[in-house]
Amino acid sequence: MEQKRIRDYGIQIGEMPTGKLNKISDVPGVKVGHATLDDARHKTGLSVILPGPDNVFLNKPVAAAHVLNGFGKTLGLMQLQELGVIETPIVLTNTLNVGLIHDAMVGYMIGQCQRDGVHLTSVNPIVCECNDATLNDIQKRDLGGAHLMAAIRDARAGFREGDVGCGKGTVCHSLKGGVGSASRQIEIDGKIYTLGVLVQSNHGSLKDLMIAGRPAGRIIDSALNCSAPDKGSIISVMATDLPLSSRQIGRVIRRASVGLARLGSFIGHGSGEVMIGFTTANRMPHESEKGLMNFQALSEGHINPVFRAMAEAEEEAVLNSMVTAQTVTGYQGTVKRSLSEFMDQILSWRG
Amino acid sequence: MEQKRIRDYGIQIGEMPTGKLNKISDVPGVKVGHATLDDARHKTGLSVILPGPDNVFLNKPVAAAHVLNGFGKTLGLMQLQELGVIETPIVLTNTLNVGLIHDAMVGYMIGQCQRDGVHLTSVNPIVCECNDATLNDIQKRDLGGAHLMAAIRDARAGFREGDVGCGKGTVCHSLKGGVGSASRQIEIDGKIYTLGVLVQSNHGSLKDLMIAGRPAGRIIDSALNCSAPDKGSIISVMATDLPLSSRQIGRVIRRASVGLARLGSFIGHGSGEVMIGFTTANRMPHESEKGLMNFQALSEGHINPVFRAMAEAEEEAVLNSMVTAQTVTGYQGTVKRSLSEFMDQILSWRG
Amino acid sequence: MEQKRIRDYGIQIGEMPTGKLNKISDVPGVKVGHATLDDARHKTGLSVILPGPDNVFLNKPVAAAHVLNGFGKTLGLMQLQELGVIETPIVLTNTLNVGLIHDAMVGYMIGQCQRDGVHLTSVNPIVCECNDATLNDIQKRDLGGAHLMAAIRDARAGFREGDVGCGKGTVCHSLKGGVGSASRQIEIDGKIYTLGVLVQSNHGSLKDLMIAGRPAGRIIDSALNCSAPDKGSIISVMATDLPLSSRQIGRVIRRASVGLARLGSFIGHGSGEVMIGFTTANRMPHESEKGLMNFQALSEGHINPVFRAMAEAEEEAVLNSMVTAQTVTGYQGTVKRSLSEFMDQILSWRG
Amino acid sequence: MEQKRIRDYGIQIGEMPTGKLNKISDVPGVKVGHATLDDARHKTGLSVILPGPDNVFLNKPVAAAHVLNGFGKTLGLMQLQELGVIETPIVLTNTLNVGLIHDAMVGYMIGQCQRDGVHLTSVNPIVCECNDATLNDIQKRDLGGAHLMAAIRDARAGFREGDVGCGKGTVCHSLKGGVGSASRQIEIDGKIYTLGVLVQSNHGSLKDLMIAGRPAGRIIDSALNCSAPDKGSIISVMATDLPLSSRQIGRVIRRASVGLARLGSFIGHGSGEVMIGFTTANRMPHESEKGLMNFQALSEGHINPVFRAMAEAEEEAVLNSMVTAQTVTGYQGTVKRSLSEFMDQILSWRG
Repeated sequence: MEQKRIRDYGIQIGEMPTGKLNKISDVPGVKVGHATLDDARHKTGLSVILPGPDNVFLNKPVAAAHVLNGFGKTLGLMQLQELGVIETPIVLTNTLNVGLIHDAMVGYMIGQCQRDGVHLTSVNPIVCECNDATLNDIQKRDLGGAHLMAAIRDARAGFREGDVGCGKGTVCHSLKGGVGSASRQIEIDGKIYTLGVLVQSNHGSLKDLMIAGRPAGRIIDSALNCSAPDKGSIISVMATDLPLSSRQIGRVIRRASVGLARLGSFIGHGSGEVMIGFTTANRMPHESEKGLMNFQALSEGHINPVFRAMAEAEEEAVLNSMVTAQTVTGYQGTVKRSLSEFMDQILSWRG
Repeated sequence: MEQKRIRDYGIQIGEMPTGKLNKISDVPGVKVGHATLDDARHKTGLSVILPGPDNVFLNKPVAAAHVLNGFGKTLGLMQLQELGVIETPIVLTNTLNVGLIHDAMVGYMIGQCQRDGVHLTSVNPIVCECNDATLNDIQKRDLGGAHLMAAIRDARAGFREGDVGCGKGTVCHSLKGGVGSASRQIEIDGKIYTLGVLVQSNHGSLKDLMIAGRPAGRIIDSALNCSAPDKGSIISVMATDLPLSSRQIGRVIRRASVGLARLGSFIGHGSGEVMIGFTTANRMPHESEKGLMNFQALSEGHINPVFRAMAEAEEEAVLNSMVTAQTVTGYQGTVKRSLSEFMDQILSWRG
Repeated sequence: MEQKRIRDYGIQIGEMPTGKLNKISDVPGVKVGHATLDDARHKTGLSVILPGPDNVFLNKPVAAAHVLNGFGKTLGLMQLQELGVIETPIVLTNTLNVGLIHDAMVGYMIGQCQRDGVHLTSVNPIVCECNDATLNDIQKRDLGGAHLMAAIRDARAGFREGDVGCGKGTVCHSLKGGVGSASRQIEIDGKIYTLGVLVQSNHGSLKDLMIAGRPAGRIIDSALNCSAPDKGSIISVMATDLPLSSRQIGRVIRRASVGLARLGSFIGHGSGEVMIGFTTANRMPHESEKGLMNFQALSEGHINPVFRAMAEAEEEAVLNSMVTAQTVTGYQGTVKRSLSEFMDQILSWRG
Repeated sequence: MEQKRIRDYGIQIGEMPTGKLNKISDVPGVKVGHATLDDARHKTGLSVILPGPDNVFLNKPVAAAHVLNGFGKTLGLMQLQELGVIETPIVLTNTLNVGLIHDAMVGYMIGQCQRDGVHLTSVNPIVCECNDATLNDIQKRDLGGAHLMAAIRDARAGFREGDVGCGKGTVCHSLKGGVGSASRQIEIDGKIYTLGVLVQSNHGSLKDLMIAGRPAGRIIDSALNCSAPDKGSIISVMATDLPLSSRQIGRVIRRASVGLARLGSFIGHGSGEVMIGFTTANRMPHESEKGLMNFQALSEGHINPVFRAMAEAEEEAVLNSMVTAQTVTGYQGTVKRSLSEFMDQILSWRG
């Protein structure tokens, strides 16, 4: 079943053309899979982003990370920043489960490498997280290797958004958050490249929410009367097939903050706002007999459209995460409503 | 003569109370002075922010800096970040004139210290800049010690905004930029503290400009038909009398980006987006016989209102810089219009 | 049984006085415990550093981290750097086991907080690692909650060094590495403070090893003929009872690199060289009704002796780790010899 | 006249082969020029490093900077770190004169670009500094455009070291410091590349000085009885013709700290320890119609020899700076002795 996304409500974010699916998977090779744990105690899960079909460890995509607000537990950024590559798929899950998923990824990579004849003794899993304790009994930590494998098997271009996988239990601007995605196309030297974003949205307070200039939070608030503080986090993952250097990816993903601010967030204290980006167009082999390697990168004067694509896709991905998520009732009875229930009111608002 | 500011047009940014003047000088002791060079070739100047009446070198305010986009020439950040203090007033001027103003500040500080019986052999001037080459013949570099002294003598709480001092020649969202300021009050432990911001605005493209949710840039653009790229810079200086550590100030000033994004900027490549903040409530003596010193800092759980204050003050300071600036014709005939000329159209816009 | 340390061989590193035990536990309250896994396949373990007897989460020591070379998998640095505190004990273990130990620490902290009436939904474990794959079958990942609890119960001031706990399987300058520690005393304002260091040594190549100016590596090499590349890592943890700010701790721990370089390391590529420091004298409460809090920090002009203490203690801690470690035979028969076997040759060397 | 360098005393630092001159100018195209101000009040000057014969602004060498200790006033690092390039020659001078030399470089670059048909409105001079106030009347700030032009005209491969240019008034380990250089050759894929280092040495305390394992400082100290604190700075510039990315250059120059520590420095507080590196093999054009560009970079597994080259060249460059510098008497009569006067004692020392 098709999910109704923000554009389906007639709201267009920005001006740039989107990719075919308007998802991170518009970047050729990139796929996303989910595993969801949804029962009386659990409203949680994990999502995995695969940069391509092959073993990422043997051919590491050039990457970068940026920490906008470091109140979070994302694992693996130190080595990513030193070496400018990722060497595993990227996993997103809940805050207290990152250790077990880190271990599950180590196990998965040992197996992958064994198949490729490599005895793995060191690997740097990237495990991101948001805190879903409002809806999920987070102390349980029941996600493990089986869920990671399920999510990897589930990986596809046409993945679902909203309250699935790592987005099952998240809360965004006091409404239901979740997984969201969007993409933009950029023409460079006559060729079309794609930049895609996937977010796990779990941040912001209701009253601050703005949608395309409309004070959506205040419109909803008069109905809901719910004023939780700006808490939680947002994880943003950017993928592109445009050849960029690690430094350039770092510059691009910093523009995620623009998308967030346009939605009204002031980036609260209790929040891990973490951006990770990678390109499928520049890879570093795990081992190379040759010392020197050829890369492509963008002439810096051409980077502005990439910045704009990042800001637009980030803003739209967060809105998609909210509008596709269904209302969820938490393990203690807390209800987080879907933005979709309020879209009529928001659309009919006149200044 | 009173300048008409954004609130005078009925536009309120955010929800927090402002200080008395709604300027950075609401922070007790903080003053701002300008020196302007305005003739056929020159549309430029400098502005100086004095943290207090005494010699800053002998009693250094705790401070931090954050670089949102480092395509700029601001001088003095390395030592500021290492030691967490400023030891001179902060100067803002044009890009190519920073060297001479650095030297002028060295000269000024030598004199200040001489009066206080200190033989100065090392000092770290903070000199910020924006590029005013669109309106100003920037290669001339005619600002020097006399202008610095004039600006210091001019320093006051009730300083002017707009196309004065360092804001004489700047361009913001393709309209006339300049100097702008705003402040917010924060209550902590039953006491009122003030956070103030001063900006030198020189960034953004016209079509992207948003004012309180209104697509101001597109409204104006239909009249002006001017689509320069997002180029230039913005310098943001934050002052507060709230006791913060250097690390905490760093966290606060990062929220300036929220204010900028709400105005529509996506933080273009060719831009030095630099934030500097200091507190007047924690000072480090230049020399101290005693090894240990007492400080106050904020319990981190109380920092969210300070973040919000920063975001709000930043957004309002930029709007004040634009709306108080008069239309200026550059040395080559280029005209940069005042936002004030378009406020009627913007205010009468309905979705 | 007393272990023979580098000073017992007549080699004195630096000039500053040591604490009573010449260990990190000279800092009042700081204790260290080990759990070791030593059988046919396992030459590994974990070590834990307790900052004090109480629940660290409720009263967080001010801290900092510095990454000298980020090719490593240490977990928890992002939040440490954002907030300037640690909120769990620090654990050190092997590279592939960090995920499970992260989870074990989450479980331990949930229990600790439950006892204190706090429902924990977020916590940031600090889990450091070195790669012991040369001696240990590292893919096994058999360390878990039971070992963490055993190490915590084992914690004491008079802890052992060498091939125990996280040092069981490490290799340093191609000899046996391990756990090492040292401390220095600093007088400030007439009072004695202590700075202690604990290392997990796993770095360096044999030929580069220098001991107090002697080319120890080359002396040994003529016997051993072993020239593995500079690979592996070193984790350095600094504790002090001197009141420092997070920024100041960051400056102090950067001087660990001095101690390492004096031992001959050039800080190879394949190495996670990570420094973490904390002070027991400044604590941040987890929650505080009061907004403002009092701290002490060092007047910066008094910091040089603290830098020197760090450099000296680091150098001595590494030597202690090596000279107390016994020769260990790995799971595949690889033998890593104890430095102690070569001390006679090194001591009798004459330029 | 040939200068007697540290190798001429029979002391070899490290194991790697040097370039032909054993100077930074072994990197093809790199030249160094000096301008010295040496009279009753002035013991100062400036030195300039030219990356190549052409206009650096139009073809920017890929570069990086690292701040080991940020108590310094080096100008231009912010943009260097954002964009990963330098766009002017690198100048080194004294602390209080950096502003005027910044302005002089702006003037020089305006002229250079004018010749190439480019109207320059923005440029980022890199101006490094050490504090020579012990010997030089530093408040005078008499270096300007004429000296910059003289140094550029003086630029050559066979430049002098010691108490010339920016090294005229510097003090190193309480002896006379100055300009020093060294180089190393690295074979990659069967081709020889060169890494060269130039330092302006102005750091360290006498008692700490080690030379190739010998306690040189203590040997000299018994004669001199001079125990100034570890103060001052060291600037290290690395050049190479090996194709590296900006991230990789950043990793390489961090290893300068190894060379410094081996000389006994513990990197004192009052010190600007700044490293800058660039490659002549990767250039970014100022403007490019084409969006994508080709680069080469090193496969990371091959980087260890480059790290070793950096550490060795740094250590040797500092020793060259000291041993070639003549004894200098300062403007107030302070005498800083040449290391060369003590080499006999140091060489005849036996453990």
